[in-house]
Amino acid sequence: MECTLLGTGGMAPMPDRFLASMAVKVGGQIVLFDAGEGTQIAWKQAHLGMRGWDLLAVTHLHADHVLGIPGLLMLRAQVDDPGPLTLVGPPGLEQFVRFNLELLEFLLTFHLDFVEWPGDGTGVAYADDILRLHWAPLQHTRFCLGYRLEEPDRPGRFDPQRAKESGVIEGPLWGRLQHGETVRTPAGGVVHPDQVLGPARRGRRVAYVVDTRPTNNVLDLCSETDLAVLEGMFLPEDAHHAAAKGHMTVTEAASLALWARVSQALLTHISPRYTLADLPRLEAAARAVYNPVRMGRDLDQVTIPLPD
Amino acid sequence: MECTLLGTGGMAPMPDRFLASMAVKVGGQIVLFDAGEGTQIAWKQAHLGMRGWDLLAVTHLHADHVLGIPGLLMLRAQVDDPGPLTLVGPPGLEQFVRFNLELLEFLLTFHLDFVEWPGDGTGVAYADDILRLHWAPLQHTRFCLGYRLEEPDRPGRFDPQRAKESGVIEGPLWGRLQHGETVRTPAGGVVHPDQVLGPARRGRRVAYVVDTRPTNNVLDLCSETDLAVLEGMFLPEDAHHAAAKGHMTVTEAASLALWARVSQALLTHISPRYTLADLPRLEAAARAVYNPVRMGRDLDQVTIPLPD
Repeated sequence: MECTLLGTGGMAPMPDRFLASMAVKVGGQIVLFDAGEGTQIAWKQAHLGMRGWDLLAVTHLHADHVLGIPGLLMLRAQVDDPGPLTLVGPPGLEQFVRFNLELLEFLLTFHLDFVEWPGDGTGVAYADDILRLHWAPLQHTRFCLGYRLEEPDRPGRFDPQRAKESGVIEGPLWGRLQHGETVRTPAGGVVHPDQVLGPARRGRRVAYVVDTRPTNNVLDLCSETDLAVLEGMFLPEDAHHAAAKGHMTVTEAASLALWARVSQALLTHISPRYTLADLPRLEAAARAVYNPVRMGRDLDQVTIPLPD
Repeated sequence: MECTLLGTGGMAPMPDRFLASMAVKVGGQIVLFDAGEGTQIAWKQAHLGMRGWDLLAVTHLHADHVLGIPGLLMLRAQVDDPGPLTLVGPPGLEQFVRFNLELLEFLLTFHLDFVEWPGDGTGVAYADDILRLHWAPLQHTRFCLGYRLEEPDRPGRFDPQRAKESGVIEGPLWGRLQHGETVRTPAGGVVHPDQVLGPARRGRRVAYVVDTRPTNNVLDLCSETDLAVLEGMFLPEDAHHAAAKGHMTVTEAASLALWARVSQALLTHISPRYTLADLPRLEAAARAVYNPVRMGRDLDQVTIPLPD
């Protein structure tokens, strides 16, 4: 699983910082979170290729999170037979996309499937064999969603020694046990998978949570993730801006990362008021709270290996 | 008068080439032509500042010419009391801008005045004391406008020798003659301005013409301009693409520049199929037709002095 920050800025794209967006490559699929103005340029810089990009998750309908969508769709239309694209996000997303495609006379070569937040609780926005995408409402100046991407858990590690002791000889029966099936031994005994498998191995987990005050939903989305990409828009001394505009300071984000026991966190959606030279100061403030936190930089890439 | 190419690309913004757009600074005003995805980034790179930007001219409603408008409006809203902004362009421009501002919940601090093409002839899109903006329909896959920006002509150069010979002594009368007024000399004679002024000095003229096949309107818009920024999207050997998609090759553009007797031309809206390394080849093809033509590069700046 490879996570690429296509941008790390909030509000407006800058010459040295594109808008917050993340691409996650997993099992041949690419999941993109948010697409503000310029995301297609960063996409090209990251050499991701369009093939495999079948899912876009949008947090909310502010310009800096959606204005790059039409351009990316145009780019995707240049791929031969790219298949349908699923767009999940807040109510109004489909209206925003379809209105612009129609008025600007796009000729899309593929189908768009929209899944808009149905209006209550938390839940699963999208699921297939490779991943499951959870969403939950956040607390911003307008309705905003946070995301948690999970792989399904895998069966535990197979123990050949215990299989032999249970009377299952090496061969096709081993494979069936590994896939969770109960088998009958040549001697007529019955062996259940849990007799020969270790504990289930959890799938990888990544959270993408921006444009929010700290809330319980943020904590739940980030809980025990391998990587949490969290908004850290302001220095603690600018906390009044964060409170007034529905954002988080880097210390608030780091504190959530700590409580959520994330393995590592990257802070993003950085205010244009801070230059690249300010980032060490933001990072120091965050790491004083929780050391596995770093400030995100454009095109940062985090590879998450399969857990043992 | 200072003309800055904010981008020189067509169709999609690239890591090393923003979309075609030009800013013209004249008399404290900035006129912007087109704003595709990423134009606000180039605007910051060019250090233009937002103050004085009061006029936007849009050629047509394709994504690569308009998707940067909302972001620029957002940026302009950060200036204290920026005054109204006038947007001129094709029918549908107001709908595109207002729909996106409303759906994305923009809080604009200034008024927007829209002037949409009324539907016939050529004419003046906008005029004030400093400039006049002409527009004319072009020939593209959808309705598209070309522009010609003109300063008003200035009175001819004042000849002090001839003023004295006409009996007008140095003083306030000289100023009135210079401003085109007829004056009476102390001796009672009448002196007309044309007796003491040289021929009227023409204002500076710039054309911005992209996304079109070669037509008479292109020729008229560019006629005897100090600078014509013209689409040169393809090499002559890719002319079939130009014909099919309603664009011009660099040789077609150079030929128009020649016929229109432009002082200099910059070609823009370059296809993503050509890299920066290809530009010399495009330029050679254009200059073989008309030597004062160059390929535009992002952030190219042309200063046009007042003519003598």
